[in-house]
Amino acid sequence: MIKVDLSSISSFVPQTQLDAMASRVAAAHETLASGSGEGNDFLGWRELPVNYDKEEFARIKAAAHKIQSDSKALVVIGIGGSYLGARAVIDLLKSPNYNLKQKDTPDIFFAGNTLSTDAVLEVLELVGDRDYSINIISKSGTTTEPAVAFRIFKAHLEHKYGKEEARKRIYCTTDAARGALKSLADAEGYESFVVPDNVGGRYSVLTAVGLLPIAVAGIDIDEMMAGAADAMHAYADDRSMENPVWKYVAARNCLYENGKKVEILGSYEPCFRFMGEWWKQLYGESEGKDGKGLFPASVEFTADLHSMGQYIQDGERVLFETIIRYANPHGQVVIGEDADNVDGLNFLAGKDLHFVCEQAIRGTRLAHVDGGVPNILLELDSINARTTGELIYFFELACGISGYVLGVNPFNQPGVEAYKKNMFALLDKPGYSDLREQLLSRL
Amino acid sequence: MIKVDLSSISSFVPQTQLDAMASRVAAAHETLASGSGEGNDFLGWRELPVNYDKEEFARIKAAAHKIQSDSKALVVIGIGGSYLGARAVIDLLKSPNYNLKQKDTPDIFFAGNTLSTDAVLEVLELVGDRDYSINIISKSGTTTEPAVAFRIFKAHLEHKYGKEEARKRIYCTTDAARGALKSLADAEGYESFVVPDNVGGRYSVLTAVGLLPIAVAGIDIDEMMAGAADAMHAYADDRSMENPVWKYVAARNCLYENGKKVEILGSYEPCFRFMGEWWKQLYGESEGKDGKGLFPASVEFTADLHSMGQYIQDGERVLFETIIRYANPHGQVVIGEDADNVDGLNFLAGKDLHFVCEQAIRGTRLAHVDGGVPNILLELDSINARTTGELIYFFELACGISGYVLGVNPFNQPGVEAYKKNMFALLDKPGYSDLREQLLSRL
Repeated sequence: MIKVDLSSISSFVPQTQLDAMASRVAAAHETLASGSGEGNDFLGWRELPVNYDKEEFARIKAAAHKIQSDSKALVVIGIGGSYLGARAVIDLLKSPNYNLKQKDTPDIFFAGNTLSTDAVLEVLELVGDRDYSINIISKSGTTTEPAVAFRIFKAHLEHKYGKEEARKRIYCTTDAARGALKSLADAEGYESFVVPDNVGGRYSVLTAVGLLPIAVAGIDIDEMMAGAADAMHAYADDRSMENPVWKYVAARNCLYENGKKVEILGSYEPCFRFMGEWWKQLYGESEGKDGKGLFPASVEFTADLHSMGQYIQDGERVLFETIIRYANPHGQVVIGEDADNVDGLNFLAGKDLHFVCEQAIRGTRLAHVDGGVPNILLELDSINARTTGELIYFFELACGISGYVLGVNPFNQPGVEAYKKNMFALLDKPGYSDLREQLLSRL
Repeated sequence: MIKVDLSSISSFVPQTQLDAMASRVAAAHETLASGSGEGNDFLGWRELPVNYDKEEFARIKAAAHKIQSDSKALVVIGIGGSYLGARAVIDLLKSPNYNLKQKDTPDIFFAGNTLSTDAVLEVLELVGDRDYSINIISKSGTTTEPAVAFRIFKAHLEHKYGKEEARKRIYCTTDAARGALKSLADAEGYESFVVPDNVGGRYSVLTAVGLLPIAVAGIDIDEMMAGAADAMHAYADDRSMENPVWKYVAARNCLYENGKKVEILGSYEPCFRFMGEWWKQLYGESEGKDGKGLFPASVEFTADLHSMGQYIQDGERVLFETIIRYANPHGQVVIGEDADNVDGLNFLAGKDLHFVCEQAIRGTRLAHVDGGVPNILLELDSINARTTGELIYFFELACGISGYVLGVNPFNQPGVEAYKKNMFALLDKPGYSDLREQLLSRL
């Protein structure tokens, strides 16, 4: 299971502070567990690892098999929580270079997460004339970015295959009963999957939202759910500072209390990059409200030790790090002997590259602590579907509890509407004319 | 040329403050121009757009043609400034999906920027049995990550082609006269290019460091240099607040003075993502020292409006945004009419997607300002080699001046050594035994 090592925050957070925080974490955990807090109509993720729709889960696997058998590419249309979870897991478990690899599963392209003309056209170009399917993921069906992309790809698919065959290649992940996309799916007979009412977008990777694309990529979603269930059983009911979730929540809230404003999530595995993006949404959107919350940032070490490393070591002391360490790689690289030793690396000859990486992790941690940067260490075994399910649930549970510690509703996102309203007004959408006048006068 | 619009900081920065800052910017500009400041042995980048080695430039183009003709892939080995510039420009001008595209230029893989075993093995797998070449970029030749990768790929290449042919497929970008890699290049007869002594890594994208991989990708490096020259002529000598560089420098330093700790660089083009990473190194490493400096972060809109958008709108008010806006896309997407209008988007039918994007940019800017986030807007024409050269020089010049305004040496990076020393000690490198004992006692 996940180990949380707080030894490198001890010079920044006195034990008395941590003890005091533990009671606040206890209260927040109780608020979450009892469902008595704000946003309590969005707690479906808590029991999702065991309490999910088994019939739908089987349909997801069947749909994944069908797509694998009749498509060379899958276009996944979604934004925010309908995008980042699937991309993060596929990058982590298959590779950020998944589409470049030789494989017997379809390429996966993410669309509907931008308004960039050239980016939209590029996905069409990359799909080319290959057989493909579409997974449109949208609770309402009216979010601008995915709706625009769906218009484009639906027309493209219907032109390519005819309306009848296209229907069999469109998979909708949407509301169970209401909404534009659900109506369309019913009318057209698209196979559809559910975005549950009680699971918010950023907590939805273990629903059909994440599971269908992840399964199409050939990832074992049973294992991933089992990993999440492991985490649920281990962490959801342990009300003590032995609980790794409590350690993480308590540490980050103490550090925030002590004036740290930025949490940097770092990993030494390049394939973790989009897990960082997923985590940034989870924490930024859950906690960043009411003028509060840690600013979530992410780095990829050791690459970024040669870019952001200087700042972390010596810049404004407003940050702390949370580092993900995977104990075991899948392969092995042994550093060779070089007769000339021009690079001076022969002292490493015969050593595993992973051993070198481990010393970089340890050395960096000490260096950053010496530079005034507290360090929370999260240790996992190796990168696989099981540990990924576990990590997802770990972060979700910690996020829910942490939001209540902070005193915010961790399950809403009122601020996301502000730009949308302005955009609609500027686009002259019916119903926005007053706001439109007001905005135009400011431009 | 680049336009810098400061209208959306006016409610956060009084004109009197901006005026006062202008004199500090003037002094800092003079320090930079006269070469009288700290780090003045690293000012070679200032005149690089016109004052570069023309013979070497021709050799870079010839080498690029040779690689294009005899290789299906180029493995670029480098870290930090020897990695991010080339990757950023290729992503921006060709695509983050460059390797996936059908093209008549080689795939480009970046290696030597990680200690991850699985990431190293993956590049070997992706290169496969195709014809390839190596560009090793390292001033000293002894930096751990690229040196390890070079041992691996050099052995692989020699095994594949024999030592003689391999020699013709290894291109070294390194010190002009000294260092491990230069000695090796001379001994083996590798073609070599120069990392100038007076240009630091993060300012080196317009030297052979960036130019060779960029040229191999089929980008017009003459145009890029011409764009940088445009910027040099327009900005390097204009000592007034009409200078876009001054506007940017003055604005960000006023905002920092007013308590903002985080600068978020955002673009609405997904292909800009790694320009953000390049910018983060440039500013983070130049300014993040002596306990000072804005923390550089980056976002990709509109995707991240659905993840980080909530935080930006409503979280801790410690941040401001710098937004890059490209006025003109290359292609066109017209939103179609849908008979059923299930998504309610028919009010956009017949409109360009780019028009929608423009309204998102304007609407978001107003929303974020209303939420307490100052916004600096950088406007460019379209994404091409010329504007990219210009933008690079713009950011470099602004960074040098801004560092002097802040009162730091913008050209050193002493903090980067701390983790390396610890890592070497833990790896038992000869000469580090005292530190080793000390560190081991802390672990």
